[in-house]
Amino acid sequence: MSGPLSLSITATDGPARVGTITTPRGEIQTPVFMPVGTRAAVKTLDTGDLERLGPPIVLSNTYHLMERPGADLIEKMGGLHSFMDWSGHMLTDSGGYQIFSLEPKISEDGATFKSVYDGSKVHLTPERSVQVQEQLGADIAMVLDVCPPLPSTRQVQVDAVERTLRWAERSKVAHTRADQAQFGIVQGGVDPELRAMSAAATVDIGFDGYAVGGLSVGETRDEMIPALAAATAGLPVDAPRYFMGLGDPIGLVEAVAHGIDMFDCVLPTRLARHGTALTSEGRLNLKNLRFREDDRPIDPNFDHPLSSRFSRAYVRHLLNTNESTAGRIITLHNLAWLADLTAKMRSAIEAGTFQQLREDIWAAWDGKASPA
Amino acid sequence: MSGPLSLSITATDGPARVGTITTPRGEIQTPVFMPVGTRAAVKTLDTGDLERLGPPIVLSNTYHLMERPGADLIEKMGGLHSFMDWSGHMLTDSGGYQIFSLEPKISEDGATFKSVYDGSKVHLTPERSVQVQEQLGADIAMVLDVCPPLPSTRQVQVDAVERTLRWAERSKVAHTRADQAQFGIVQGGVDPELRAMSAAATVDIGFDGYAVGGLSVGETRDEMIPALAAATAGLPVDAPRYFMGLGDPIGLVEAVAHGIDMFDCVLPTRLARHGTALTSEGRLNLKNLRFREDDRPIDPNFDHPLSSRFSRAYVRHLLNTNESTAGRIITLHNLAWLADLTAKMRSAIEAGTFQQLREDIWAAWDGKASPA
Repeated sequence: MSGPLSLSITATDGPARVGTITTPRGEIQTPVFMPVGTRAAVKTLDTGDLERLGPPIVLSNTYHLMERPGADLIEKMGGLHSFMDWSGHMLTDSGGYQIFSLEPKISEDGATFKSVYDGSKVHLTPERSVQVQEQLGADIAMVLDVCPPLPSTRQVQVDAVERTLRWAERSKVAHTRADQAQFGIVQGGVDPELRAMSAAATVDIGFDGYAVGGLSVGETRDEMIPALAAATAGLPVDAPRYFMGLGDPIGLVEAVAHGIDMFDCVLPTRLARHGTALTSEGRLNLKNLRFREDDRPIDPNFDHPLSSRFSRAYVRHLLNTNESTAGRIITLHNLAWLADLTAKMRSAIEAGTFQQLREDIWAAWDGKASPA
Repeated sequence: MSGPLSLSITATDGPARVGTITTPRGEIQTPVFMPVGTRAAVKTLDTGDLERLGPPIVLSNTYHLMERPGADLIEKMGGLHSFMDWSGHMLTDSGGYQIFSLEPKISEDGATFKSVYDGSKVHLTPERSVQVQEQLGADIAMVLDVCPPLPSTRQVQVDAVERTLRWAERSKVAHTRADQAQFGIVQGGVDPELRAMSAAATVDIGFDGYAVGGLSVGETRDEMIPALAAATAGLPVDAPRYFMGLGDPIGLVEAVAHGIDMFDCVLPTRLARHGTALTSEGRLNLKNLRFREDDRPIDPNFDHPLSSRFSRAYVRHLLNTNESTAGRIITLHNLAWLADLTAKMRSAIEAGTFQQLREDIWAAWDGKASPA
């Protein structure tokens, strides 16, 4: 690949794979979980915290940033990296996912919807999304896609796939920054045939990487897996594959088992602010009375310098007195814990023991992974 | 002094002084500002942040901790230091200041008031405050005092001084921990004569250090200074002097100018969460439109690794989108800025230039120090 991004696969175990993404900024080991910094900050953390945690890449949301503080301002401040003072990688979404929760009017030109900030009418086109993301200056930009809810009729899904493809072509034409990678997005709901068609046609347009969008939005895992498998089967081996909006441990191992390299989700940080920790025992709601005198760390089987020093009893006290320090400690824990899970997946794939890790995660998490 | 705390004065400039407090835990350079960790955490920060900031001592609130999570639990968890995993010094207040905002019924035995947590009736006596603070295990404990509002009649102030003295005697008798220092509190409102009487009688009882309470509660500076001067004039040179609840820069230099060694206040952390920074230009409300494109640090004349990396424009954006990261960044800045101010005061006293620093602070802050 002669673009701004390349992927080198260094180990495989079935479809699961370990790789290194190389960009002008540096390298990203995959599989990788990307914490979400919606408005140019991961909630409760600052950039110093991100440096201590060490995620190689952080996601930020184009829609929110184009509204506040505006792409022109961030560009003037030197782009997102400079604005946050973050030297790691960044990925910006296209704005599509946010606006599809705002009951947009979709035309061939783009999407029109009401601002969540001031109720004014906002019009977002594929070209505008590209332009804003170039102003933000992330290392990886996403094309604007049509993201229907599940369930939708087949015709709605077909229309979404086809319009997403036309928007992807326009996005590729509009893209000008040679130092910014651009990813296409595969749609098609839970229909494997549509997913395969969408993947093949998106690959025909040609992007630096490919995302699977419109899944993990309420469907069952039995509906999701065949659609995911059909999508990834049609994607090139030598480009990154990104499952958008996935953050639960079983989802992660299943996606990696189907050849996915990248994920993001607000789940670990949102759960944290509500008192829920990801642990080797599954989800723990640390507000629970049973942790009142529990002097063990959040996860006794996970040691991390930023969070393990604090006892469950201390974190529970902070939660019960509405001290934001609690959300901060659990956010640090959850992000470190997911980074550790992806590191374990990389090691297991390299050792040829990924199936064992997959079964361990299912054993620890099955029935404990429902949304809080 | 044969107790658990000693003070060595190493430089003076008029009444202003530089010293070293030595305890079984270590040393504290004075003058020192103590950040407030109301419920065993400084709001928006965790203990790792405190270690990076480096305050030698943090204050925590006995009343809040005895309610949630309870002194028995904290004792069971090894005391406050262990509960927070903080190896620096801690000071606990007596609960007096909080309960006097809860319209208590005061009898000779103690104070009865309604819990802010569940409305239940709470009874706090001098002995109970000592006992709770011994369970919490701070390095410095305060006696329970009677803290009348300003203005109050002379008779109310006389009664408060006299009852505070009787409670101080009971507190001293009740105190058993040899590794915990105990400070008495001088009351007397804005009446220099009462302050002098209170100081002399408190010193007669004999404590490891002495606080000036009941000031900086709404009186003018012209009312405050003579009362402060009368109080400190009656205190021994070789014991720490602590002005309770003071955190504005002019207040700090004036208190140091009158021989005070220690301060605490929620002001710098509370202001931070509302977007206001302490700077060499005075208070700045970073929500202001004029900072929209300001790429300078919060205080261009103050460099600190935890906060100076972030621009006013970035912090303003985070404030305007209600990201708690803003409060965190300004909290780190304000605490670092006040620590730097106390370091500057120590250097100036050592160099014999304290009067110049005092005038500089007045020039920067006069008229800009009113409560936000």
